[in-house]
Amino acid sequence: MHDHYPSRQQPEARFLPRLDPVVFGDCPAAPPNNRPPIDRALVSKFETEGFLILEDLFRAAEVRLLQDGARKLLADPGALAPETLVTEPGADEIRSIFAIHRQSALMERLAADSRLAGLAHYLLGGDVYIHQSRLNYKPGFRGREFYWHSDFETWHVEDGMPRMRALSMSVLLAENRAANGPLMLIPGSHRRFLSCVGTTPENHYRMSLRKQEYGVPDEDSLAELAHRHGITVATGKPGTVVVFDCNIMHGSAGNISPFPRSNAFFVYNSVDNRLQAPFGPEKPRPPFVAERHDQTPVEPVTGQLTAG
Amino acid sequence: MHDHYPSRQQPEARFLPRLDPVVFGDCPAAPPNNRPPIDRALVSKFETEGFLILEDLFRAAEVRLLQDGARKLLADPGALAPETLVTEPGADEIRSIFAIHRQSALMERLAADSRLAGLAHYLLGGDVYIHQSRLNYKPGFRGREFYWHSDFETWHVEDGMPRMRALSMSVLLAENRAANGPLMLIPGSHRRFLSCVGTTPENHYRMSLRKQEYGVPDEDSLAELAHRHGITVATGKPGTVVVFDCNIMHGSAGNISPFPRSNAFFVYNSVDNRLQAPFGPEKPRPPFVAERHDQTPVEPVTGQLTAG
Repeated sequence: MHDHYPSRQQPEARFLPRLDPVVFGDCPAAPPNNRPPIDRALVSKFETEGFLILEDLFRAAEVRLLQDGARKLLADPGALAPETLVTEPGADEIRSIFAIHRQSALMERLAADSRLAGLAHYLLGGDVYIHQSRLNYKPGFRGREFYWHSDFETWHVEDGMPRMRALSMSVLLAENRAANGPLMLIPGSHRRFLSCVGTTPENHYRMSLRKQEYGVPDEDSLAELAHRHGITVATGKPGTVVVFDCNIMHGSAGNISPFPRSNAFFVYNSVDNRLQAPFGPEKPRPPFVAERHDQTPVEPVTGQLTAG
Repeated sequence: MHDHYPSRQQPEARFLPRLDPVVFGDCPAAPPNNRPPIDRALVSKFETEGFLILEDLFRAAEVRLLQDGARKLLADPGALAPETLVTEPGADEIRSIFAIHRQSALMERLAADSRLAGLAHYLLGGDVYIHQSRLNYKPGFRGREFYWHSDFETWHVEDGMPRMRALSMSVLLAENRAANGPLMLIPGSHRRFLSCVGTTPENHYRMSLRKQEYGVPDEDSLAELAHRHGITVATGKPGTVVVFDCNIMHGSAGNISPFPRSNAFFVYNSVDNRLQAPFGPEKPRPPFVAERHDQTPVEPVTGQLTAG
């Protein structure tokens, strides 16, 4: 398959044109009479900036339910598939649990919630499946930073995602404050593809889930992006949802505050954009990190989240 | 001399009462007819919260002058006393230059500027001298975090500062944004003294100037402080001055943004609070870190900063 977004192949970084729309909802490929589930102004904002911060998308009772669910998952790691657990470098503390939509009925329901899946369906112009899901927990006092990256760069090179037709939704389960290492995004950075230098070592994923060291954007390009577009710090209360394009440059600083940060995180990919052979390493990453076997479309479920 | 604020002597951390005023300007010890150089409301705020963020204290032309001066100091480290240079852990990049008021006429003038020294004179109720000065530079992309601490705890234990009658002023030379690892403070945390556990190794200062590892507040106490008082992120443009009490709990996250951070930093101590023998290690830290020989009162200088 032709590689439209080559990366980690050249000694120098390059900006390449984005060949794909950001919003597929109005494209010829979209289903007829496709109606946006959010204001058109927000759709435009997503197209221009590459992300949306949607406050109060979930109600207080729903947030409590999700927080309880998250606590239970973190408290009983023995009940989970061991390969889906990622710990802090140099510590036993759990940083992420992958494949939560397969390991928790509540998280499966959340992934299918129309507020998330319905929006993904619209923005990506048709049926979507879960490419990746996880529960992220950034502890207080010693939460590590996550350096700048485009998710798509990794998903393309390491997982074989051919085109940009995916997006992420982060459901905040703790308050994201300026003080506790919140998500930072460079608005507008999704409109070009920044290739990274170097090559990908085999079995890199085990390391990269902990601390990004390869496939890292170069400083000159990051400085250009940040000076041109600025940096937005995504703060918000629990129940806020941050929706972001697969190619937006983002990262987060460490968290020395006593306030932990956690979120439930879902990546929706168009069924027309299923994974191919990776565009870098020979061996793709395992399905709990990048789904390549089960592209069952998510059927959006309306109504509030309830217990049981 | 009696140790009013014992720390690093017990296996458990404790909150001890603060025995000293925060604002000495109205105390019996203060000079008669002592008038605050800032609004009384700001004086009250300083007393209650332990810090002030004073915007636009220096004009654009003065800021440019200071930025040029800082650049020159950083660009020619060979011209400086080698012991006053502190580099990033694992890198050659300069993180701080100490004793700048002795190594740069511009920084000496800045330290004496009435907007700084006059305010210190009022708040500390009489003559002050420079306990420490430095230029801080936190690079973009890889600026390290600085964990929570009370400066006074260190100055007391390691330098023999007997009482709380000192304060710091940070003159911002680059914009402090939420995204570039700004100073974070816990308002109100200065009103109690938090003793730290453990003991101080000899020659600890070389290490601690790079990365705090001893004399660290415990997590339970930090959590109590942060939940009670919250955390303020000190953002501001160049020319903003952050004034903070010697005992306020503060720290900063790492900086992955491309925006470096820098400031000129002065600690004013009352001439009635000069250093004694340390209350911990036998050997005090050297004078470029903690002045113990020269308590010449700073004579406040009015008027704008000018070149030459």
